[in-house]
Amino acid sequence: MTYEQIPLKIASLASLDSGLFDKDVLLSWQLSDAAMRAILLAAELIEDLTRNGISTRLFDNGLGLSIFRDKSTRTRYAFCAACNLLGLATEELDESTSQVSHGETVRETATMIGFLTEVVGIRDDMFLGEGYRFQQEMASSIEDSFRAGVLMQRASVVNLQSDLDHPTQSLADLRHLAVHFGGLERLRGKKLAMTWAYSPSYGKPLSVPQGIIALMPRLGIDVVLAHPPGYDLVPETLEQARCFAAAGGGSFTVASSMTEAFCDADIVYPKSWAPMSVMQRRTDLLRAGDKAGLVALEREALENNARFKDWECTDALMAKTHDGSALYMHCLPADVSGVSCAAGEVSASVFDRVRYDTYREASYKPFVIAAMILATRFRDPAAVLDRCVQVSPSRRHG
Amino acid sequence: MTYEQIPLKIASLASLDSGLFDKDVLLSWQLSDAAMRAILLAAELIEDLTRNGISTRLFDNGLGLSIFRDKSTRTRYAFCAACNLLGLATEELDESTSQVSHGETVRETATMIGFLTEVVGIRDDMFLGEGYRFQQEMASSIEDSFRAGVLMQRASVVNLQSDLDHPTQSLADLRHLAVHFGGLERLRGKKLAMTWAYSPSYGKPLSVPQGIIALMPRLGIDVVLAHPPGYDLVPETLEQARCFAAAGGGSFTVASSMTEAFCDADIVYPKSWAPMSVMQRRTDLLRAGDKAGLVALEREALENNARFKDWECTDALMAKTHDGSALYMHCLPADVSGVSCAAGEVSASVFDRVRYDTYREASYKPFVIAAMILATRFRDPAAVLDRCVQVSPSRRHG
Amino acid sequence: MTYEQIPLKIASLASLDSGLFDKDVLLSWQLSDAAMRAILLAAELIEDLTRNGISTRLFDNGLGLSIFRDKSTRTRYAFCAACNLLGLATEELDESTSQVSHGETVRETATMIGFLTEVVGIRDDMFLGEGYRFQQEMASSIEDSFRAGVLMQRASVVNLQSDLDHPTQSLADLRHLAVHFGGLERLRGKKLAMTWAYSPSYGKPLSVPQGIIALMPRLGIDVVLAHPPGYDLVPETLEQARCFAAAGGGSFTVASSMTEAFCDADIVYPKSWAPMSVMQRRTDLLRAGDKAGLVALEREALENNARFKDWECTDALMAKTHDGSALYMHCLPADVSGVSCAAGEVSASVFDRVRYDTYREASYKPFVIAAMILATRFRDPAAVLDRCVQVSPSRRHG
Repeated sequence: MTYEQIPLKIASLASLDSGLFDKDVLLSWQLSDAAMRAILLAAELIEDLTRNGISTRLFDNGLGLSIFRDKSTRTRYAFCAACNLLGLATEELDESTSQVSHGETVRETATMIGFLTEVVGIRDDMFLGEGYRFQQEMASSIEDSFRAGVLMQRASVVNLQSDLDHPTQSLADLRHLAVHFGGLERLRGKKLAMTWAYSPSYGKPLSVPQGIIALMPRLGIDVVLAHPPGYDLVPETLEQARCFAAAGGGSFTVASSMTEAFCDADIVYPKSWAPMSVMQRRTDLLRAGDKAGLVALEREALENNARFKDWECTDALMAKTHDGSALYMHCLPADVSGVSCAAGEVSASVFDRVRYDTYREASYKPFVIAAMILATRFRDPAAVLDRCVQVSPSRRHG
Repeated sequence: MTYEQIPLKIASLASLDSGLFDKDVLLSWQLSDAAMRAILLAAELIEDLTRNGISTRLFDNGLGLSIFRDKSTRTRYAFCAACNLLGLATEELDESTSQVSHGETVRETATMIGFLTEVVGIRDDMFLGEGYRFQQEMASSIEDSFRAGVLMQRASVVNLQSDLDHPTQSLADLRHLAVHFGGLERLRGKKLAMTWAYSPSYGKPLSVPQGIIALMPRLGIDVVLAHPPGYDLVPETLEQARCFAAAGGGSFTVASSMTEAFCDADIVYPKSWAPMSVMQRRTDLLRAGDKAGLVALEREALENNARFKDWECTDALMAKTHDGSALYMHCLPADVSGVSCAAGEVSASVFDRVRYDTYREASYKPFVIAAMILATRFRDPAAVLDRCVQVSPSRRHG
Repeated sequence: MTYEQIPLKIASLASLDSGLFDKDVLLSWQLSDAAMRAILLAAELIEDLTRNGISTRLFDNGLGLSIFRDKSTRTRYAFCAACNLLGLATEELDESTSQVSHGETVRETATMIGFLTEVVGIRDDMFLGEGYRFQQEMASSIEDSFRAGVLMQRASVVNLQSDLDHPTQSLADLRHLAVHFGGLERLRGKKLAMTWAYSPSYGKPLSVPQGIIALMPRLGIDVVLAHPPGYDLVPETLEQARCFAAAGGGSFTVASSMTEAFCDADIVYPKSWAPMSVMQRRTDLLRAGDKAGLVALEREALENNARFKDWECTDALMAKTHDGSALYMHCLPADVSGVSCAAGEVSASVFDRVRYDTYREASYKPFVIAAMILATRFRDPAAVLDRCVQVSPSRRHG
């Protein structure tokens, strides 16, 4: 099975110059093509090695630090699993006791927690205009202290979801597509419908749809975005989508209905998000500590959502996709109508059929995060993986 | 000392077919005799190896996940220590952020946290009819996703205390008995008094007495259960006690007073628990969110408890045991009269004498949990322990 | 660079008999000179090895436990990093679920969390007369259970800050001084000003100034303590300072102003702390649960602080130091005037210049803690470090 292909894949990885050593992974659109492909291939290799019982414990010690400014079970687990795959212990920075905010405090904290740290994973997706800025500030503070000789190593910052992008999700999704369709090359000319879907909750981050539309056109995929009026994404991300479509041979278009987007689609990604304008007002109200305003905004936003309850992924809609058998994608958890809520993003009938597909989609995330750590922490990732194969017979399941 | 006996013990372990590989440890009465003995012997071996400075780090990486639905310091530590003994990093699933409840949510969460997980330890002992059900649901969800090819390995679920059983406690207790009396065979015909004892608190789980009465008769022990009227245990567990007594050559009887139970006993286990009926009403009130009802129930239950303040393990009672020197057992922490409370389960005079016995009893738990992980995660536990002896000279205390 | 000097340093370490094996590190003034020098040299060696990519993973498994009775980001991280350097996994004891207080409870908890633990790191600095007592109680409980044969190893207790001392800070500070001035010998005759400084907060522990004045005179340093009237330290620590000054060839004097202390100083350490009497009254009020009293005390203390706003480290004051270029020290975070507060311990202009010096000062703490673990857990620290050099080529950054 996969074992025989490992040396060839390692050789391929060796031919890719990701340029990521001692750098960060903050936005997928900052990655060169080689970097993107190196992460995907390294994720595949780390998974192959793990399946074949070959340990990828590259670090004898070292720390992976996480900062979660929003709730998380799955990504927290995936980060922990990724660090563990490579031999890093994880520690979470509890901000309730540390007050990392901005400016000097960030610079100091970044240094204090950076002395023996290899990677800092950050989720900060609640405030438009904040998450990416904070991640960038942590990264440049670490860089400064490294250059000043205070830090003996330059920990990498990995974006575990920001206001702009969710690269560990979008790259895991791309791994899933590559496996499903038989290779990255096979994705050229496929149609992907990234659509809004109804949810009885509000305030869901924009990072997943933004990450998908910005990444997928690079692979020659024809991406169609559809959402109700007003549910706009951050303009910068649409701009990225258009640029990459032009460069990568795919296309990026906007449709006005789920039906139009689903029509003949090979892949559908129906998912709720909050309108950019709501997120912006919410950020302002939170800053002002305006509780009454927040309650009012929530009511208004939910009422507005409710006007679009028909944005639900149903059997009838799925039937309109290519051969009626488009691949359904979701970052999970999904709002399943009649299961987790009265009416939601997807009908129970559709979700029942695709459940294991979505689980499989999620399964790539630990390996993608591990690949990002590998790419940013080692000058020659191919060489270190090759050494794993040579010297590291697994001690597991003997 | 123990070092010379290790190869013989490994050979004994090799002769036991536990049938536990890729299975769970939820209830001791689901374990075959071979499985029970394999866990005990593996626990002994892991302790022997550790004492002799031989590393039992069987995993190069991998995760042990815990879910605690009730407070815990000792079991949390024991699970962490057990995982660490074998090379697993631990991560706790924080349900305040993840809402694992029932049905699809459990199935999904079990999968999302199962990708690179070897063992999931769960404490869920507060609600009658809930704990075992939840553990079973987690286990079958993992099994399903493993069979569907979504999980590359089949994490085992280990019961760290449920509404029905507390197998890591009862098996650690059995290890303690075997060490104290000089072997499992020596336990045949010994009399064990599992009795209720007074405590100024209410709502203590039933799992310890239930686990003890269901497990000990299998070893040919004569188990006597005693409690005040109304402090009944879950009937299923009494049924198990009777069956195992018949099969194992021990006996299971019910006495109506502490004195009767203590009379000529070789082992006494005086411990408070809540009546099954109180636990059931509490569960209903908690579900209904009936705070006034809960306050009333607590008052009623404490008043009822107070009628049985004479159920205290005293010197006078201890004097009635076999040669006046029965082994005192407790899962800790004990309510010691005049120390941790005005009146409690045991007098200060008795507890002062037996304190280190109870500490020793507790000391087996990390090794028993490690043995459960070993038995469920490796096809041939004897072979992997043998390899530890061959290849793994400790790097400690050089 | 450093690599060539490693064997010589290991030989030096071998010549020092620290007497710390199976002991604790609670107060620096309990350390013999050999012990103090052994910790400093081991910290230097562990850093050298790490910089040279030589793994110091001495433990194949084992646990480092922490108990934080006060908020901490930096020391928590430093403890975690230190344990990780040596191969220990860390676990934090959450007292909200465990109620470790005094007496039997401490004895029992110490044992229950000690079975497979190598080191227990404790921060308990809020209550005068409490922190050191609690650390001592934990240590003697572990010792008792070890001697009783209940614990198979004797975990060491390391003081991560108490009411009396902060040895991981003061020894990291001493490492910093040794590096800055070119060796411990070069510190003889240097003048160090340990002075109070204004802060708009109250209740800061006394442990840092106490640790500094008690430790530095041992090295032949001339320590001058200065603080406003009433901001006294615990008398025992002044006594230690005087004794060590007499024995070590340094001096310990008290000045009445910042200016006097700074005059011709080679090293300045301006830092806020609460008067001992305020801490004592606060402890009493907290014990009595007197919230109104606490509010009143805080107001009174802040008003009193405000009378000494001119105790600020400014450019003008720094100009009075030796050649105007004294080394500025701070345990961080510092209250920087105009940055983290309107008026504080140090002017922005001074702090901007010395920022990286303070970061560097902090960088030694993980290595100092690792050295304390090494010294207390291994009979022959030099031998185990030597083995690291021989057998443990790093697998990092290949």
